[in-house]
Amino acid sequence: MKLCILGFGAVGRGVAKVISKKRDEMKDKYGLDIKITAVTDSLGAAICNEGLDPELLLEIKEKNGKVSSYPQYGINNISNMEVLDKANYDCLIEVTPTDIEDGEPAKTHILKAITDKKEVVTSNKGPLALSFKELATAAKENGVQLKYEASVGGAMPILNFAHDTLPSCNIESIFGILNGTTNYILSRMAKEGSTYEQILKESQEMGIAETNPAQDVEGTDAACKVVILANSIMGKDVNLKDVDVVGISKITQEAISLAKNEGYLIKLIGEVSDDALQVSPRLVREGSPFAVDGTLNVATLKTDLAEDVTVVGKGAGSIETASAILSDIISIYKTKK
Amino acid sequence: MKLCILGFGAVGRGVAKVISKKRDEMKDKYGLDIKITAVTDSLGAAICNEGLDPELLLEIKEKNGKVSSYPQYGINNISNMEVLDKANYDCLIEVTPTDIEDGEPAKTHILKAITDKKEVVTSNKGPLALSFKELATAAKENGVQLKYEASVGGAMPILNFAHDTLPSCNIESIFGILNGTTNYILSRMAKEGSTYEQILKESQEMGIAETNPAQDVEGTDAACKVVILANSIMGKDVNLKDVDVVGISKITQEAISLAKNEGYLIKLIGEVSDDALQVSPRLVREGSPFAVDGTLNVATLKTDLAEDVTVVGKGAGSIETASAILSDIISIYKTKK
Repeated sequence: MKLCILGFGAVGRGVAKVISKKRDEMKDKYGLDIKITAVTDSLGAAICNEGLDPELLLEIKEKNGKVSSYPQYGINNISNMEVLDKANYDCLIEVTPTDIEDGEPAKTHILKAITDKKEVVTSNKGPLALSFKELATAAKENGVQLKYEASVGGAMPILNFAHDTLPSCNIESIFGILNGTTNYILSRMAKEGSTYEQILKESQEMGIAETNPAQDVEGTDAACKVVILANSIMGKDVNLKDVDVVGISKITQEAISLAKNEGYLIKLIGEVSDDALQVSPRLVREGSPFAVDGTLNVATLKTDLAEDVTVVGKGAGSIETASAILSDIISIYKTKK
Repeated sequence: MKLCILGFGAVGRGVAKVISKKRDEMKDKYGLDIKITAVTDSLGAAICNEGLDPELLLEIKEKNGKVSSYPQYGINNISNMEVLDKANYDCLIEVTPTDIEDGEPAKTHILKAITDKKEVVTSNKGPLALSFKELATAAKENGVQLKYEASVGGAMPILNFAHDTLPSCNIESIFGILNGTTNYILSRMAKEGSTYEQILKESQEMGIAETNPAQDVEGTDAACKVVILANSIMGKDVNLKDVDVVGISKITQEAISLAKNEGYLIKLIGEVSDDALQVSPRLVREGSPFAVDGTLNVATLKTDLAEDVTVVGKGAGSIETASAILSDIISIYKTKK
């Protein structure tokens, strides 16, 4: 399977690392031979139909800051769309930066690949949260697969889990802690008794929260994931503007202490149900599967037969997210074999 | 798919209830037409190649205490082995009582069905914990499937989860809370400050612990599940006698309080790793996925790429366990289609 990787930030580099580490194992275990035939970043591309060396790609990116320095096969000033035309590939790995205003340019990349009858794997929440139906329909019409496990919960395998492990059950609703940064902040507020502002500042210094933390703390990131879960698992047709969103920036230490005295914690919870499509701070009971701390993500499926079934995993991390992308690639390969 | 259900206790009746509830849905969703052609209990059987009515089976069992009162098709004093010869079925549902001394008579039932080229789904831990390799080899040699999701963690889908959702990862070890009764007792000891003896007595009165609680509190039940996980997921060849087992009956309130003061809880943890095959009380951190209370079961897979991935679910319950059995039936049907 030949991959074209658009974007060579943390996730794109994670994919290269994971492929380098696992290539022989994938061949032995599944008969899957993975080649990276094209990679782009904001400055250019490297394209080679025989396959680029993932270790050399990582080394060159680290040293020169651009993949177009790749010997012999580097190309400066080429657009992603030109690369999609020029490269010989079976599956697009769309891992350019997420935009939640219009989902671009990722949406255009994905639609182009689909129209060209290529499979697509992405971690990019923007196009999925804004144009899920359009993308899913295009994939179906063109007879290709569009997979996006990494877009929700990083290495927490919620989509495959919901689709594959409980065939006897109907999923009636989904509740989740879908953003690691806010879970980290709320957990530390509960443990240390410090204010939101203090913990946010420290989280930014530690690189856990971003310099502009709005998308995390105002709940937008979690809302994108709510949309993806609603469309993918619950068969709804919704997008970002349909979600009621309240973030955590107004949570006081007093509210957390009051909850704690009664055996509860405050968590930022995403809900997908027939009654609600929302992200908001809510009380969860200590000792429940939602009482996890740190940057962990959690999702509970409420089912008709098995009651609540919950999955917990790391919500972020370059290698962890890349592992979800590789799982999607393997899954596409298995169904095509 | 024609089912022969051996055993009509809580789990067997759960299977009948779930099939009654979901039969039309399974037909619409998967094209799977399920018929129960034989059911047994300790007093006899009901056999009908055209299919028995699950609701009538449940009604008769409730009213008369035996399935052999089923009109026209009831048979008194027939052994399970005779039923396996007489019935027309595709898949054995083995849900007779668990025996952990020699795994009988379930083991003989399962081997007979396998030799007769029938698929097998079971929740019966005994034969799996004592003779896993023998049963798995027999199934392989006869070209049939042997599935047992319900034998570990009831409605917590740990086996399907480990096999299906993380194809990019190697599973390096498994840690789990695999017994609901002990988790309930330890959780209440931590919350209420009462002694082990007090809480055990109350749990017995509430029907959560059995009159003879030894298999749960001494760790044997959890050890059976450790063996199944080790063989099924980690490819080991071990059985019950290979597990180091320490139960919870010697856990004092003082130990729990000491742990609590440092932010820890004491849980009965099963471990499968290259270093250990064991069940023992261990400290888990508050705020970790293991800090769940009540009768919940938890299992964490330590992976090479995705770090820790955890699944939580109800460890027992008639309908919940039956839902895992139905999921196995659907999975067998899908691979044969």
